[in-house]
Amino acid sequence: MAPYLLLAPGPVNLHPQVRKILSEPMIHHRTPLFDKILTRVLERLPSIFYTHQRVYLLSCTGSGGMETLMVNTCNPEDEVLVINSGKFGERWVEMGKAFNLKVHDLKVPWGEACTVEMIRPFVEKFPIRAVFCQATETSTGVKHPIEALGQYLKTFQDTLFLVDGITAVGAYPILMDAWSIDGLVAGSQKAFMLPTGMSFVSFSTKAWKRIPHVKMPRFYYDIRQEDRANQKGETWFSSNVSLIKALDVVLNLILDNGLDEHYHEIRERSEFTRFCIQHFGLKLFPQSPSESITAFCVPEGINSQSLRNTLEQDFNLTIMGGQDQLKGKILRIGHMGFIERPDQIRLMSDLQKAFTQFKVPFNPLSETEMLQWFKS
Amino acid sequence: MAPYLLLAPGPVNLHPQVRKILSEPMIHHRTPLFDKILTRVLERLPSIFYTHQRVYLLSCTGSGGMETLMVNTCNPEDEVLVINSGKFGERWVEMGKAFNLKVHDLKVPWGEACTVEMIRPFVEKFPIRAVFCQATETSTGVKHPIEALGQYLKTFQDTLFLVDGITAVGAYPILMDAWSIDGLVAGSQKAFMLPTGMSFVSFSTKAWKRIPHVKMPRFYYDIRQEDRANQKGETWFSSNVSLIKALDVVLNLILDNGLDEHYHEIRERSEFTRFCIQHFGLKLFPQSPSESITAFCVPEGINSQSLRNTLEQDFNLTIMGGQDQLKGKILRIGHMGFIERPDQIRLMSDLQKAFTQFKVPFNPLSETEMLQWFKS
Repeated sequence: MAPYLLLAPGPVNLHPQVRKILSEPMIHHRTPLFDKILTRVLERLPSIFYTHQRVYLLSCTGSGGMETLMVNTCNPEDEVLVINSGKFGERWVEMGKAFNLKVHDLKVPWGEACTVEMIRPFVEKFPIRAVFCQATETSTGVKHPIEALGQYLKTFQDTLFLVDGITAVGAYPILMDAWSIDGLVAGSQKAFMLPTGMSFVSFSTKAWKRIPHVKMPRFYYDIRQEDRANQKGETWFSSNVSLIKALDVVLNLILDNGLDEHYHEIRERSEFTRFCIQHFGLKLFPQSPSESITAFCVPEGINSQSLRNTLEQDFNLTIMGGQDQLKGKILRIGHMGFIERPDQIRLMSDLQKAFTQFKVPFNPLSETEMLQWFKS
Repeated sequence: MAPYLLLAPGPVNLHPQVRKILSEPMIHHRTPLFDKILTRVLERLPSIFYTHQRVYLLSCTGSGGMETLMVNTCNPEDEVLVINSGKFGERWVEMGKAFNLKVHDLKVPWGEACTVEMIRPFVEKFPIRAVFCQATETSTGVKHPIEALGQYLKTFQDTLFLVDGITAVGAYPILMDAWSIDGLVAGSQKAFMLPTGMSFVSFSTKAWKRIPHVKMPRFYYDIRQEDRANQKGETWFSSNVSLIKALDVVLNLILDNGLDEHYHEIRERSEFTRFCIQHFGLKLFPQSPSESITAFCVPEGINSQSLRNTLEQDFNLTIMGGQDQLKGKILRIGHMGFIERPDQIRLMSDLQKAFTQFKVPFNPLSETEMLQWFKS
């Protein structure tokens, strides 16, 4: 059988250099060697966030990073707006309710992108303390217009713009400072090409003015403590040594390659995927597709979950199906992580074999035609 | 220079099999292969906790696990008692204050073990909803009498006994059910011989009766959600695939070896270390030393931190110094993780060389005498 191929929207396939460093003997976090690595990582991470602020390393999944944005900026009973366009928008809503916020739940139809017009009635009518959004909603593959939303929201002095960039930061440019994002979270197992287990967060000056006055009970995610520790060249809790060492390697890879070239490669993967899907005669699911992930529809009568399972069992490759209202209806392919051109071609070839097996009508595409696309 | 040797109280040296599995290609957490691994881990982990309850896998450091115990069992304004005998006791106090608990701060002198007599005045006089303790206080190496404390506290119907077993569980038996522990937390980078990044928690039936009624705002650490996900064979958030795969390997190693033999090896390391230290003519720091870590005093006039730094720079090995009031006064050696006999002998030989360099008066011990100890 062909080697296992992981092309999900996260976790993603690891670079060989990352796998190598993860296998190294453990070192202690209170050593000069680790101090140097931590300093290097903390110095370079802000460039991926396009910010002058510090970016913090948290030992938790992306959801812990989302919680960090919320509990450091919101008081109980605060009115907040959630742009809810999928599973992860729903997570903001549930989280807000768990922390006793008054949540305005703006339900954007799955697959559609939010507009300034959609949020205007909320922020102009209610004392909205924070607007929560996804940069890319992983469950639908939609990319929201973060720049436009940020430009609009920055004029509201008491409203912070808090963005889940978990499936975005590092995959395409999210300009935290220039777009007036007040809190941004990224995840290790996405464009940072690491195992699951860390998230990265940063706050704007506007957010930092509020943070010390926020009364929400918090300890593990109290960003003031992490900030103090970072100023001393430490992390507040035991450093996530393995992932921070691996992150140092990933930053070398990305920054040596150049951010532009790095983004270009991911964009090329998404464009190739969209070209193939549309050539097959299938429909992309989201209105405004993201560079990090491509979601597309399978024809009615075909169960995308069964197709995905077949790809796993018979072809030894993992892509994802749909969740909740999209269960059985879409397939999702990730473009982040260590992916080489033969992997992309293999996926599209195997997908066609599976289509045939499932009697999906499609317009076939040969490997020669695929290679042709890359040359053109 | 000799290879790097990590003998700290955590993170600990990794087993070669763990290093190997950490270097494997990433797999997705929604795959039959990972499902099997997760099921196996969730089935076997309770045996290390000596409990019939579920043990949950959290992506966070030990402090996140401590927070999980607190926020699921305490309401704001609850009166709680903290047995505060060092840095990690202080962490319970700070955390309790952050969550608006009324904290009774029982300051036990550093190095002394807590007794039932010490806590009696608190639990008999105040409506204490929870008693927080460390099984082993990592900053001093003291081992608290968890069994005795648990036996005493179980008679108080409205009082839960919540134990930080981060530097204990897996290093020596902590009998959660038999000792009436209501909440227990362990950490990946200690006796579980993994990198930092996960903690493991479990709750008693007595605790589970309270959990659904607790009003403390919580989301990431809401154990009810994790419990629901585990019942479906999943984790609530993205699974920490790498560490869970590695934990599966560690459980193989420990359980194949047999828990008794596993504990015996760690106890032997601690006994050997104590034998050497006392032979040198130096004093153990804690009244009742733990199996997981040995803390001992350096003579007045010698700075233990400088000695520790010299061991790192000149001998390429890491042990730890003291913190806060013990800074410069003690050294701490860990007994958890992948440690072989030659490592133990090397440490004691290098320690003697450093003693000579620092003009510490000591009664020397030859390698032959050390080997003799193991034979006797």
